[in-house]
Amino acid sequence: MKDSLFIIKVGGNVIDDEKALDDFLETFKNLGEQKILVHGGGKIAAGIAERMGYQTVMVEGRRITDSNMLEVVTMVYGGLVNKNLVSRLQSIGINAVGLTGADGNLILSNKRPKTDDIDFGWVGDPETINAGLLTKLLDAGMTPVIAPLTHDGKGNMLNTNADTMANRIAVGISEDYEVHLVYVLDLPGVLRDIKDRSSLISDINEEHYQQLKDKGQISKGMIPKLDNAFWALEGGVKSVRIAHFESIAKLNQADYHDYTLVH
Amino acid sequence: MKDSLFIIKVGGNVIDDEKALDDFLETFKNLGEQKILVHGGGKIAAGIAERMGYQTVMVEGRRITDSNMLEVVTMVYGGLVNKNLVSRLQSIGINAVGLTGADGNLILSNKRPKTDDIDFGWVGDPETINAGLLTKLLDAGMTPVIAPLTHDGKGNMLNTNADTMANRIAVGISEDYEVHLVYVLDLPGVLRDIKDRSSLISDINEEHYQQLKDKGQISKGMIPKLDNAFWALEGGVKSVRIAHFESIAKLNQADYHDYTLVH
Repeated sequence: MKDSLFIIKVGGNVIDDEKALDDFLETFKNLGEQKILVHGGGKIAAGIAERMGYQTVMVEGRRITDSNMLEVVTMVYGGLVNKNLVSRLQSIGINAVGLTGADGNLILSNKRPKTDDIDFGWVGDPETINAGLLTKLLDAGMTPVIAPLTHDGKGNMLNTNADTMANRIAVGISEDYEVHLVYVLDLPGVLRDIKDRSSLISDINEEHYQQLKDKGQISKGMIPKLDNAFWALEGGVKSVRIAHFESIAKLNQADYHDYTLVH
Repeated sequence: MKDSLFIIKVGGNVIDDEKALDDFLETFKNLGEQKILVHGGGKIAAGIAERMGYQTVMVEGRRITDSNMLEVVTMVYGGLVNKNLVSRLQSIGINAVGLTGADGNLILSNKRPKTDDIDFGWVGDPETINAGLLTKLLDAGMTPVIAPLTHDGKGNMLNTNADTMANRIAVGISEDYEVHLVYVLDLPGVLRDIKDRSSLISDINEEHYQQLKDKGQISKGMIPKLDNAFWALEGGVKSVRIAHFESIAKLNQADYHDYTLVH
């Protein structure tokens, strides 16, 4: 039987809130022996960019990673956010080790090609995952903490979506582990009505998802997360959950399901 | 017989110069199978701090790491400089992995205590070295690339001198390897006269060093490097050299000694 492995993706809303982050790290600590943390940090990067006097370049409502912004995200994701998480985990007894996709060639990406409509700039779409590196670190008792950056193999770092990275890593390592992927939010999970926490959808399958999407009952921000989630399940991941950070302490309790289980 | 291991410390002057960095990385690549790179980056951090509107706090001519500056060095050393080095090494076929002292608990430091005269702020003096982590990575064919940051075990990153880190790592790992430590500069080595490159001291022992120091013939910046060097030799390091980045391609040639050998 394979060992189980939690892969937890945590976003900027949780990281950016001192109290939430403390609570989250404490519950993360108690989540079983083997785990991987994948983090975002977009809000923090936007703050630093502003402070440095860099304009956020938007094209058709979409954020562009120009070279100034690449410098900022490399600093903020790979340095500030990643190392603060690592040192805080170390202080509570977790032997964390911070990585980007460049480190040990963990994730090699394609720079997203520009189209006639849009050039996203220094953005990467993951191509190959070096799951063996993660297995080695996990076997040595370490907890990988992964920043949303990859590289192109040509000497450039690339800004990369943290949800996608968590997903690809989950699928890539599912041959060796029984992988439980959790997207951690400051919401209880997928809500029918974003303003009403009691409208939690506690489980969702692909058919149900399609129905809700057709009726416009899934919020725009949730769609890529759920698409990712179904893709991960097809790729061999054992379970995918979308959960509030306070819930992750109870994920192993059979009678607890105040989160969205994607199945 | 122990395997040999090069530990190369490279400073901001080389990193900051595109052409010098290219040359340096190419020679680093050809330096034998097992090696570790330790880097600085102070000039780059100072530039980013200025851009962010942070004042460099100096007390009695010494730079202080206040919390703003800690944020900057964590971003710049751990993120910008480290990840750019890692991705560039990956692009020339070196399986680099970036680390700070917090990652895998590589170096645990004491926050330097404040005295009546001075409080250096968030500065670390290395206490324990986890050489086993480096051995594991080297055995797996990886090349550690180490940023001048450590942690205090209480959740804080600490700004740490890169020369000192290189030194402590060299001594810490010398039980397992025959360690050759090289401080790489944009100067040929230790000069009698800083303005005259032909005044290179091609080898120096502790007695000779003491004599030169007494006569005021060693530049101030070289003194901590040489103190570190003698300390490393006493700690079991096989050789210490202070060399120009162009020289490191030839370090294995017996008839070449355009560098300072400390013995």
